[in-house]
Amino acid sequence: MRTYKLTVAYDGTGYQGWQRQANTDRTIQGILEHAVSEEMGFSVEVNGSGRTDAGVHASGQTASIVLPGMVDAESFVRRINGRIPADIRILGAELVRNGFHARKSAVGKVYEYRIDTGERPDVFERRYCYHFPEKLDLEAMREAACLLKGTHEFAGYTDKKDEKSTKRTIYDIMISGQGSRVNIKYEGTGFLYHMVRILTGTLLETGTHQRTPGSAGKALESKDRAAAGFLAPACGLFLREVRYD
Amino acid sequence: MRTYKLTVAYDGTGYQGWQRQANTDRTIQGILEHAVSEEMGFSVEVNGSGRTDAGVHASGQTASIVLPGMVDAESFVRRINGRIPADIRILGAELVRNGFHARKSAVGKVYEYRIDTGERPDVFERRYCYHFPEKLDLEAMREAACLLKGTHEFAGYTDKKDEKSTKRTIYDIMISGQGSRVNIKYEGTGFLYHMVRILTGTLLETGTHQRTPGSAGKALESKDRAAAGFLAPACGLFLREVRYD
Repeated sequence: MRTYKLTVAYDGTGYQGWQRQANTDRTIQGILEHAVSEEMGFSVEVNGSGRTDAGVHASGQTASIVLPGMVDAESFVRRINGRIPADIRILGAELVRNGFHARKSAVGKVYEYRIDTGERPDVFERRYCYHFPEKLDLEAMREAACLLKGTHEFAGYTDKKDEKSTKRTIYDIMISGQGSRVNIKYEGTGFLYHMVRILTGTLLETGTHQRTPGSAGKALESKDRAAAGFLAPACGLFLREVRYD
Repeated sequence: MRTYKLTVAYDGTGYQGWQRQANTDRTIQGILEHAVSEEMGFSVEVNGSGRTDAGVHASGQTASIVLPGMVDAESFVRRINGRIPADIRILGAELVRNGFHARKSAVGKVYEYRIDTGERPDVFERRYCYHFPEKLDLEAMREAACLLKGTHEFAGYTDKKDEKSTKRTIYDIMISGQGSRVNIKYEGTGFLYHMVRILTGTLLETGTHQRTPGSAGKALESKDRAAAGFLAPACGLFLREVRYD
């Protein structure tokens, strides 16, 4: 038995998200499992570091697979890439210790949310940015971000009611602006369902002065979803990196 | 009568090129003429600075239209953009002197050709780059580019036999590389049918040592299409700018 860690990039535009579903074959996990299983001649499970929602992109998603023996990683990657659509690419396969699991072994994640504030949406970035044609007060957004960093119960910042624990640590939220583009980078231990998109919606409401920076912290304390901001659309979100020890 | 210059960006991926065609409505000119005519309530011709081939992109195509009177440019642009698909955007409309014609008045054009030399194609750039996974000798390419610059008969570098004149001036060819990305920027008075893509194919063959830099100059002198390089695919090509006095 050998365990491999796969690094995967995908343009999420045409997909129903990472997780395999019985009623559609437009999921990343479903497509990868089909391709790996066909290639190997037996059924192989592809375990991702976590689900990404419909329309969310990844440049550094990870997944683990267990195979009965060694494979040549380079040629394995090439063969699998030959079996999948061009908007999904395996970037690498790495032999890891047995027991490694892409989700359970992960210690951190990096997401980036990309915003196009230009008056007219950039035609070449329209699939990879949220078009939000507003002037953003980045300093107010950074002030709100400061209140969101750290270890907190993020119950107000998720759309899922039944999480075992809503405690997470955000190491950093970096907001950068250049021209009409604003990027928000999130680094943390892990993120709840919709959490990065709700954090982004809250920061955008702060940036347009629809709310105060302090209200972002209040939404945290109240644990009330209604006190946090809108759900920013999937198309601006990228899973950049999954970290392991 | 008022003449307006439009600046237009489009993702050419799904289109049959700029020029209107009787047998398809998937052309940029056709879509713009339809939208402007519907908006104005009478038939309006949209004259581009030149045709772009099927699949070629533009971030700064220009076109001229003649209207019976003044319009508010800002609101005109907004209304036309509301009538066309998201992968075509009018970036601006500017009142210009009567007699101005986007093609006839143009004095220069800037094209850029984008190449992804990475082993695996970048999933987010796959529509906007030619994936050519080879190590490129940029110095050899620059040497060939030097021989192509200047005023020449470019009969060897076009796929159209019946051009009135094949004399053009290339002011500059700038080749830059960063990581796995190589960009080639062409500035000139104008370019013949397929010329930028054949120049690019020739430079790529030079960069992989399939031909010498000198052979690029020889193809110019011989005026023989067969002596020049392959036709690089449309997806990597962008019309960046059209210049006027």
